[in-house]
Amino acid sequence: MGAGPGDAGLLTLRGAELLARADVVVYDALVNPDLLRLAPKTAEIIYGGKRSKDHAIPQDELNKLLVEKAREGKIVVRLKGGDPYIFGRGGEEAEEIAAARIPFEVVPGISSTFAAPNYAGIPITHRDHCSSYTVITGHEDPTKDASGLDCAQIARTAGTKIVLM
Amino acid sequence: MGAGPGDAGLLTLRGAELLARADVVVYDALVNPDLLRLAPKTAEIIYGGKRSKDHAIPQDELNKLLVEKAREGKIVVRLKGGDPYIFGRGGEEAEEIAAARIPFEVVPGISSTFAAPNYAGIPITHRDHCSSYTVITGHEDPTKDASGLDCAQIARTAGTKIVLM
Repeated sequence: MGAGPGDAGLLTLRGAELLARADVVVYDALVNPDLLRLAPKTAEIIYGGKRSKDHAIPQDELNKLLVEKAREGKIVVRLKGGDPYIFGRGGEEAEEIAAARIPFEVVPGISSTFAAPNYAGIPITHRDHCSSYTVITGHEDPTKDASGLDCAQIARTAGTKIVLM
Repeated sequence: MGAGPGDAGLLTLRGAELLARADVVVYDALVNPDLLRLAPKTAEIIYGGKRSKDHAIPQDELNKLLVEKAREGKIVVRLKGGDPYIFGRGGEEAEEIAAARIPFEVVPGISSTFAAPNYAGIPITHRDHCSSYTVITGHEDPTKDASGLDCAQIARTAGTKIVLM
């Protein structure tokens, strides 16, 4: 579930509805902690990290934790900053959960990729000026052999560029 | 205000809060009409269009309408499918409203650019495979002299490509 970019008001109605039914909530560093109050008082609240070099729980253990809690028959909410599939490693967690044959739903979240420009008064597209945009991570997996980003090529493409993190 | 990609549950909490205080709601063709029930029963509900070639209200008249209603001291919600600044002409409307010195707030919305892949089980980024993505309109202003899109250049850029409309 995407928690949105910070402001608790940017959670979706569907997100609030599911949080209110959670038995377990595993949340990230970038999530607004006020959102945890939407979970039942009896819910188990787990900090899943992560800021660089300060992973509360390593990713593989976290994946196992999500699977274990779900196998206990619990409703598990994995609450992530922004949208879970935009630079959120949600894809990796979903792969593990799917491999364990646990039914799940992805709840999209407002991403800072467009919310931050919104609040700064910058439309990322505009009919007169810009018909495309490209979003780039500023923070690739440091264990990768080579960057997947060709910045020279990206710079040659028209449209708004948004660099994250 | 972004209404999200269709499912009423994908409106934000902030969106629901402001809709409940609206005196006037001007909504687009792509907005889920169930959301209009969140406005007070006394609110004036105006259909603002638009599907191609079937604009209920031409854009310049619509801009004027927003300004006029606001000048009457009313709380006006301009409800648009997806996010207002992602191919939604929200930028153009905001320019008019800003030029008229009317205070306004932009409420981001869940965009189909990522919600549709989310629900289809496709992470648009993945740490192992993809560190960027590009969103392109499939529907430019037909009065433009030349396309702002260089598809050959876009194709040479790595990362997920998302084509809208």
